[in-house]
Amino acid sequence: MMVHYMEYAKEAMDQISGGGAFLTVKGENRVNTMTIGWAFLGFIWGKPIMMVAVRHSRFTYELLKESQEFSVSIPIHSDLKKALGFCGTKSGRHYDKFEECGLTLVPGETIKTPYIQQCDLHYECRIVYRQSMDSELVQHPIVHRYYDQNDYHVIYYGEILACHT
Amino acid sequence: MMVHYMEYAKEAMDQISGGGAFLTVKGENRVNTMTIGWAFLGFIWGKPIMMVAVRHSRFTYELLKESQEFSVSIPIHSDLKKALGFCGTKSGRHYDKFEECGLTLVPGETIKTPYIQQCDLHYECRIVYRQSMDSELVQHPIVHRYYDQNDYHVIYYGEILACHT
Repeated sequence: MMVHYMEYAKEAMDQISGGGAFLTVKGENRVNTMTIGWAFLGFIWGKPIMMVAVRHSRFTYELLKESQEFSVSIPIHSDLKKALGFCGTKSGRHYDKFEECGLTLVPGETIKTPYIQQCDLHYECRIVYRQSMDSELVQHPIVHRYYDQNDYHVIYYGEILACHT
Repeated sequence: MMVHYMEYAKEAMDQISGGGAFLTVKGENRVNTMTIGWAFLGFIWGKPIMMVAVRHSRFTYELLKESQEFSVSIPIHSDLKKALGFCGTKSGRHYDKFEECGLTLVPGETIKTPYIQQCDLHYECRIVYRQSMDSELVQHPIVHRYYDQNDYHVIYYGEILACHT
């Protein structure tokens, strides 16, 4: 069922920051998913937006060079802890995470990128802006905790074309 | 009453994008407020965050050079259309907007920046990151519509220290 992009914002953010969600990207030859624990929902340039962050070192970062889309699938009611653990620690360079975790891909309704059937809430997004964090501007305690390997995040602004349960 | 930062996320975003809200900043010698129609709520670096966007040309941009804080006050139930109109078109360089609009400032509970009593929902934020949009990365239709004067936004990431009604 299609829902307003902010309808389940609290449930979405609680799950993302508390247990994680799946960020799925389809490159030219591969689909991959990774666990995210950070995100933003909001509105800019007349568009509803979901923002996600991906480090330069990630396989997903490489796929995002080939794509203008992503989907975010959130397990609100379903227990996917094991899959979230696997997809947050293993690289799509070495594993087919969908096969390893028994996750089923469903074709997106508005984008070419699929989403994950076992989740309850899905955002289909088209990237309208992307910008690397500027290491000079990040505060020292945050650098110390998250970026001591100099592996900064790129922030992707995805226009939400569909939000469904 | 203190509430979870996402408790009224839908109401907040609907009002911000539909009618506007007040972004209040206290510089060294002046307090000012401006109307915003864009914002994001989310989570990064272990922190609940509200993001706001301010153009370089704004008086608020100058005040934000002197401040690490802002408050966002949202009129969910109260009708402040007239004040939102005034504060979105007039500059704090030329007006005391609080006096002009009959808006009352209340001392912040966690920051030195006040909030606006006539609103129903308030976010008190400490800035943890700020980055100018990169004009090279903004898509052409967005440049054409919003930045033909080359007056890009700075994005401010404010850690939400308090959210109250």
